[in-house]
Amino acid sequence: MSTDLLIGRLRAGLGDKGVVTDPDILDSHRNDHATFCEAGVPAVLVRPSSTAEVQEVLRAATEYGVPVVPQGARTGLSGAANALDGCILLSTSRLNRILEISAEDQIAVVQPGVVNAELSRAVLAQGLFYPPDPSSWEMSTIGGNIATNAGGLCCVKYGVTGDFVRGLEVVLASGEVVRTGRRTAKGVAGYDLTSLIVGSEGTLGVVTEATLALRPEPEAALTAAATFMSIEAGIAAAAAVMASGLRPSLLEFLDGPTARAIQNYRDMGLPDDVGSLLIAQSDRGPRAAEDVAAIARICTEYGAVEVAEASDAEESKMLLEARRLVNPALEPLGATLIDDVAVPRSKLVALLQGIAEIGTKYDVLICCPGHVGDGNMHPTVVFDRNDPAAEARALEAFGAVMNLGLALGGTITGEHGIGKLKSRWLAQELGPVGLALQRQVKAVFDPANLLNPDKLFL
Amino acid sequence: MSTDLLIGRLRAGLGDKGVVTDPDILDSHRNDHATFCEAGVPAVLVRPSSTAEVQEVLRAATEYGVPVVPQGARTGLSGAANALDGCILLSTSRLNRILEISAEDQIAVVQPGVVNAELSRAVLAQGLFYPPDPSSWEMSTIGGNIATNAGGLCCVKYGVTGDFVRGLEVVLASGEVVRTGRRTAKGVAGYDLTSLIVGSEGTLGVVTEATLALRPEPEAALTAAATFMSIEAGIAAAAAVMASGLRPSLLEFLDGPTARAIQNYRDMGLPDDVGSLLIAQSDRGPRAAEDVAAIARICTEYGAVEVAEASDAEESKMLLEARRLVNPALEPLGATLIDDVAVPRSKLVALLQGIAEIGTKYDVLICCPGHVGDGNMHPTVVFDRNDPAAEARALEAFGAVMNLGLALGGTITGEHGIGKLKSRWLAQELGPVGLALQRQVKAVFDPANLLNPDKLFL
Repeated sequence: MSTDLLIGRLRAGLGDKGVVTDPDILDSHRNDHATFCEAGVPAVLVRPSSTAEVQEVLRAATEYGVPVVPQGARTGLSGAANALDGCILLSTSRLNRILEISAEDQIAVVQPGVVNAELSRAVLAQGLFYPPDPSSWEMSTIGGNIATNAGGLCCVKYGVTGDFVRGLEVVLASGEVVRTGRRTAKGVAGYDLTSLIVGSEGTLGVVTEATLALRPEPEAALTAAATFMSIEAGIAAAAAVMASGLRPSLLEFLDGPTARAIQNYRDMGLPDDVGSLLIAQSDRGPRAAEDVAAIARICTEYGAVEVAEASDAEESKMLLEARRLVNPALEPLGATLIDDVAVPRSKLVALLQGIAEIGTKYDVLICCPGHVGDGNMHPTVVFDRNDPAAEARALEAFGAVMNLGLALGGTITGEHGIGKLKSRWLAQELGPVGLALQRQVKAVFDPANLLNPDKLFL
Repeated sequence: MSTDLLIGRLRAGLGDKGVVTDPDILDSHRNDHATFCEAGVPAVLVRPSSTAEVQEVLRAATEYGVPVVPQGARTGLSGAANALDGCILLSTSRLNRILEISAEDQIAVVQPGVVNAELSRAVLAQGLFYPPDPSSWEMSTIGGNIATNAGGLCCVKYGVTGDFVRGLEVVLASGEVVRTGRRTAKGVAGYDLTSLIVGSEGTLGVVTEATLALRPEPEAALTAAATFMSIEAGIAAAAAVMASGLRPSLLEFLDGPTARAIQNYRDMGLPDDVGSLLIAQSDRGPRAAEDVAAIARICTEYGAVEVAEASDAEESKMLLEARRLVNPALEPLGATLIDDVAVPRSKLVALLQGIAEIGTKYDVLICCPGHVGDGNMHPTVVFDRNDPAAEARALEAFGAVMNLGLALGGTITGEHGIGKLKSRWLAQELGPVGLALQRQVKAVFDPANLLNPDKLFL
């Protein structure tokens, strides 16, 4: 049977260590962290250890017409790494070497399976800084971060993953290798295929090497946290901080329902009728204290009922605790569906008011934490997973939030990607001409539609 | 005859004001600022005043099979805006409105014909900052800046044009309109077509609107200038400044030949045997003085024989004068061919040594100013335009510099683009697989190859 032939060929190319058929292991690799996202049954899991072995896998896939689903650490939230029936799962777990760290050129060259935290620590040891910090950074891989153009907390000052990707080595569906981009800080020779591949969710090629920009190590950071009695006051204070030119290295927002869930989970001394929380950080070392004081003044001016300024790292950590507790605090409340809309900052109040209305309409709890400095919110629909009617309402609310984001001039996904979870909404955001162009671009890279074929597009 | 039919149709769509056939005006629009770059004789110059009129032009071009060359202010340095025989020149000069400036969302929405300086001043009046500052900023348009992904002096801190482009409205060769990207700070829905179009030199579509990111107004800047007796010392000092975490808002380098040309043009008190000059700026307002002092200390440590620190705006301007005089100082020396190589900073000394050897080998003067913080140099071959043998040697030296840049892991163009001038070297930088992909991407956007068809690719 052809699957046996395929597996035989893969074993010949990759060796036994590189080819896994154990049903339990395959089963454990079917899903990423997205909820409510279907996943098929893979034929085989491959773990290539070199670019040449990735080429082998893709040549075999092309020859046998078998789809390939690239996987990093499967911490994604949109199902982009979910298996489909009969596919080859291509794990980058053995492509996990940091190939180079250059302090002089402020770059790192890595394989895709390197874990973000591992790279961040390795460069820090040389006085350098790799800013992109998705919440999953202790587990997620650079390849996965590139596939989703992952954001994080520090984007508000430093930008997203793509802002730090200078060049890529990519294996195409044909098995050919292409190098895009460059090692240099600037370069405009030809079309920017690097940016095209960043965020393409494994649908255009398999990244086998990335050249990443680094920065000098940041100075020490200090944190401030402010409590407001309304959503509007918290949002207005955040807008004022952004307009001030202070450049916070983190600016997070928690709405009332999120703050109350945290207070119920652990006593943080928050008032019962808390409207919103704002948490900000400055990482300018000796100047962080004055920045934090300026942020605190702005928050007070905009009606904060309580403002705390950290004076050292320990206090800073404590003030960030509320943000860290979002997931653990929401978990006991039920199943969650996490939205990822981003809107222009001027539309944030309208977004949050609209989300409250959606919650009422569909009779679901929607908690709304988010990266307020970027206008990127994570409205999280919480519901009883044992109640099918509640689940149906939750899914409708989840979609309504995306429609609201689009209506406000925003996007359905600021940093999590489309994957399988949001492909129904993609056409609405891109429009028919844009969608047609994107499909044709996909066909240039992957004419037989073998790379993650059930993702991104419907 | 078909040209008459085409012009008739264009007049019907755009009115008399939008269609120019005066041979003198056509002749004055044949070239951009690139030297030694052929240009054809256009059939007609159109000046559409709306997206609908651009659509009209492209529909007519497609119907008649006539190539279209988009033009901004024609300040480009690679011939990308040069006419080809029988083409339609599409000038964006009447698409020159600033449609929106939002202080709250820190964005501007503009038509492509808006001059960079005009936008920069308009946003500054609202306390905002549009950083990209190519040398041509008083003349060049945002559309042209986008077409070349233009750099400038402040890239070293703020990035290039593309880093500030969030979304585009683009008319395709078919006449269809596509909107790419977004108004929001983050967004990952689908492939990043915005970045694909930025830097595509008018070969994928005609940009009719751009949504640009702004920042809060920068604080006051101060400048330092240092004189070194060798190239190596100046480069080493620049590397140390970049490694220090100081984030200069400008870091420019002039090699000995350039510095001597300036000294001959105007007495700046530079020693006869000057090796290199470094000019740096910090724009951190009250903290600029301490930054400039730190930069001065680094320069002294690396062997500067003279270091000047400005204490106010007037002195800062004086210290920048040497950089401003590069073009006027080189002009009387002869014709120039301006290279635009960028290399990893660790290869700058090798680049400059290699360039000196190339100058000797081909018996031409090569002056080397550049944006040293980005590793982006503008080696400028100076020669006697009345001596055909000298011109031939200059062209060979020009190519040898690009080959050297590639050999050092760099790019043939950091910020000027490929256009017509450098298309011979593009294949070498991209490799066969990359080049084939780029051509196929071009065909997706422009299947009949009507948009700037003789540019970028050979």
